[in-house]
Amino acid sequence: MALIDDLQWRYATKKYDATKTVSREDVDKIIEAARLAPTSSGLQPFRVILISNQELKEKLVPIAMGQQIVADCSYLLVFAAWDKYTEERIDAIYDRTTDERGLPRGRFGSYTDLLKGMYLQQQTPEDNFVHTARQAYIAFGVALAQAAELKVDSTPMEGFFGDQLDELLGLGEKGLKSVTVMTIGYRHTEEDWLVNMKKVRNPIEDFVIEYK
Amino acid sequence: MALIDDLQWRYATKKYDATKTVSREDVDKIIEAARLAPTSSGLQPFRVILISNQELKEKLVPIAMGQQIVADCSYLLVFAAWDKYTEERIDAIYDRTTDERGLPRGRFGSYTDLLKGMYLQQQTPEDNFVHTARQAYIAFGVALAQAAELKVDSTPMEGFFGDQLDELLGLGEKGLKSVTVMTIGYRHTEEDWLVNMKKVRNPIEDFVIEYK
Repeated sequence: MALIDDLQWRYATKKYDATKTVSREDVDKIIEAARLAPTSSGLQPFRVILISNQELKEKLVPIAMGQQIVADCSYLLVFAAWDKYTEERIDAIYDRTTDERGLPRGRFGSYTDLLKGMYLQQQTPEDNFVHTARQAYIAFGVALAQAAELKVDSTPMEGFFGDQLDELLGLGEKGLKSVTVMTIGYRHTEEDWLVNMKKVRNPIEDFVIEYK
Repeated sequence: MALIDDLQWRYATKKYDATKTVSREDVDKIIEAARLAPTSSGLQPFRVILISNQELKEKLVPIAMGQQIVADCSYLLVFAAWDKYTEERIDAIYDRTTDERGLPRGRFGSYTDLLKGMYLQQQTPEDNFVHTARQAYIAFGVALAQAAELKVDSTPMEGFFGDQLDELLGLGEKGLKSVTVMTIGYRHTEEDWLVNMKKVRNPIEDFVIEYK
């Protein structure tokens, strides 16, 4: 099945069938897709927090403004972006890159100097976070596509109290801030109000502006 | 071929073979994937500007800080987000949604009131734009995955002067701001310095934090 058909098939699931569980193999593929997603300068300035612990999922219900879906899903994936760029973070990525490519460390030194100038001198940590969050969203899109290919249902969720989630998961100490959440599971075909509704999108002629 | 393999295959192409052109059919699929991508509350607060005009692509080289890739690609896709949310924009989407689903207009009135309260009263236009840009990035990730499935090479590009690009394309008048660019084409297998380099990512044990 082509990806376009998978994207037509998927929808933001509103109720999961709690009796069905996504396999470990499938969740690993979804995370792998997120890991392979491109990011600006290859910095991968985000992490995925994977939650299957039922007690923890229940604690997330109030943080997700009462949405029961976070308890009924098989897994919940929190996409958490770096709070800011640092010299150490940039160097660690490029040291790994040169090591894995069999190149001398510092091979990309003029480029990393450019990045450090931009992120550490010209930009504020708040500017940095706008940027790191966007990179997490690229991977979020790729992960949603991967779930659809596997016929695993998913729900992109921004409706949660980020500060509370960060505190519960201790993300601040890790230099991370939650930006978006993806739950996965299998749709409840009888009780999900959205399951049989038509998918609505802007018509292509409104969506694209073309310069031929 | 599975999406994971397509994602392994793709890389940020640094030089295109200008003698090969992406088919119209393939570019249409990439745009369709972006159009089908999920967005917060289904608002799709972004547009894609599709550029194949050679003269215009040449004009983009200085705006893209001298990167010749924007002239050599087959198509350039600018992802441009709404500058802010407005009552009219929110209503237009929900009017279409109810119409297409055969529901009475206003069926989601309490929800759209909530969105309007959040975006128009609690948030500034700057906050809005942080959010609309993130939605564009979800579609950007999905479009990059779609290109990979089609074995179309692509380059995610943030290195451009957004204000200049917006002015050249008249995006301000449309209430849009460019956020990211994707070029597509076919890799130059001899002259792209990156084509044979190993793809490097954070190892999975660093990338995922798991709560079982």
